[in-house]
Amino acid sequence: MDKTIFTPLSELKVIHERQKPYIHNTPVLTSRSFNDLSGTKSYFKCENFQKMGAFKMRGALNGIMALNETEKSKGVVTHSSGNFAQAMCLSAKILGVKATVVMPRTAPKVKKDAVRSYGGFIIECEPTLEAREAAMNEFSRKTGAVTLHPSNQKEVIDGNSTAAIEILEAYPDLDAIITPVGGGGLLAGTALAAKQINPEILVYAGEPMNADDAFHSLRTGIIQPSINPETIADGLRTQLGDKNFPIIQKYVTEIIRVEESEIIFAMKWIWERMKIIIEPSSAVPVAAILKDPKLFMNKKIGIILSGGNVEMEKLPF
Amino acid sequence: MDKTIFTPLSELKVIHERQKPYIHNTPVLTSRSFNDLSGTKSYFKCENFQKMGAFKMRGALNGIMALNETEKSKGVVTHSSGNFAQAMCLSAKILGVKATVVMPRTAPKVKKDAVRSYGGFIIECEPTLEAREAAMNEFSRKTGAVTLHPSNQKEVIDGNSTAAIEILEAYPDLDAIITPVGGGGLLAGTALAAKQINPEILVYAGEPMNADDAFHSLRTGIIQPSINPETIADGLRTQLGDKNFPIIQKYVTEIIRVEESEIIFAMKWIWERMKIIIEPSSAVPVAAILKDPKLFMNKKIGIILSGGNVEMEKLPF
Repeated sequence: MDKTIFTPLSELKVIHERQKPYIHNTPVLTSRSFNDLSGTKSYFKCENFQKMGAFKMRGALNGIMALNETEKSKGVVTHSSGNFAQAMCLSAKILGVKATVVMPRTAPKVKKDAVRSYGGFIIECEPTLEAREAAMNEFSRKTGAVTLHPSNQKEVIDGNSTAAIEILEAYPDLDAIITPVGGGGLLAGTALAAKQINPEILVYAGEPMNADDAFHSLRTGIIQPSINPETIADGLRTQLGDKNFPIIQKYVTEIIRVEESEIIFAMKWIWERMKIIIEPSSAVPVAAILKDPKLFMNKKIGIILSGGNVEMEKLPF
Repeated sequence: MDKTIFTPLSELKVIHERQKPYIHNTPVLTSRSFNDLSGTKSYFKCENFQKMGAFKMRGALNGIMALNETEKSKGVVTHSSGNFAQAMCLSAKILGVKATVVMPRTAPKVKKDAVRSYGGFIIECEPTLEAREAAMNEFSRKTGAVTLHPSNQKEVIDGNSTAAIEILEAYPDLDAIITPVGGGGLLAGTALAAKQINPEILVYAGEPMNADDAFHSLRTGIIQPSINPETIADGLRTQLGDKNFPIIQKYVTEIIRVEESEIIFAMKWIWERMKIIIEPSSAVPVAAILKDPKLFMNKKIGIILSGGNVEMEKLPF
């Protein structure tokens, strides 16, 4: 097996120890109502309570902690404009590293403010993927800053794996574990840890029907592009990458697709009944469980709630 | 001291033990961001995570558990149409007691459905307080059902006291404790327990400026009516009663009034930053702390978040 991608569990545990001073071991919640509704025994790993409100903190932190001192002195740069940018800036701030984020000039002020509030610098560019990548690469070439990818990078995937390590430490007898899938970094990290801890565990993902490139990638064996995805689950509009796809191919049993209405139902249900804020992306695996009750009947399932960063002014209900 | 109202701590502890199989010892959350914002060390007692989503479960449960077997066989009745009705119905269901709720015929379907979902019977009446009380009393006279009051009844106040017992068991060195005040049942119960556990602790309440009858009651020494209160904090539109007022008079240091905009700011802040759903009433004590930072500077404060039952379609943001 390719160790450069398939990091051994022993290394993931070292990474977890290294992370611990800087992340929350987030709580695992249960809900009798949800168990009744779904016919499962479900355990919700609440990464919405993670620092900066999402699991991305784990991967970004490890992306920086894995650098040597010379690299750290040059700083880090990314072109994410979402949770990963904030996670990288907060991690960099904690570790005393300079962080720069390339953002489209059209990005919402609230996102720019968030990056600045964590001490990040912003470089604006045209609102295309090409312009963002070009600006990032140019900045990296000029300054020596290390580029970090939100989902398709070994260190980021490894860093993400620790949410699964924590839930399996608390509940070692889970039958299955499920995450949302967008760029693939959370799913790959989760699968990598979970399957090495317990080879019998089944790993699933939920994906929006309107952004089902990962589903088709798994079916065809070729990474499919995400073309004009229109889904409320804004964290899941990206596509898989060559670092996480082999892990997903090897370990993931099935990707379950859900409609927008099912995502919104699941999100509202969790808000109303469990009284916690989850972002639409987090509702996707919840909707997947409700979509296919036979598959999960009477099973113990770990659900990674990826985050809780929601624009309150744009709620779908 | 009048023991018929001022229940000794030893009895409150017996009540707590009796409740324990049927209620959650709800988590106490902290937030570094909130501590930074407020200049306090705050501890949030999350009754939004209580069964049926509010502290009312504690008082309703005790209201029924305190009955003798003959009384239980006749059932219970109330004319609350809010959280207390649901709490009473769920408590009654758990304890195998018949529950009836008098509701105005204009009450929202969602509230009627909630009562029915907990196995409660509904009697409809005209939408006035007089009609509700008349219908309740008539039903009680005919059937022998015991009337329960949402806030102005010794057993309900005593039952509510256990949230304070729990937070003070976890954090015995709190300098102050604060609740919202509407009907006064939570504030009185909290004060009753807290002051007997630690006579040095200061007890505060937050109240909407637009429904500040408790503030004026405390100032004047006479229970003031709540006349046409217009506040988003729908749980706080009621007025104090003769059972809880003496406790509040004896033990409460100050009632801090807050504007509607401050309630909404606090609610949104808690949702966005702590990722938990709280109802507007719960945001009132949070807003009170932010209103008067000098009063609470560097203090350890227990905040009772009263509940999390929110109509998602009617959010103020």
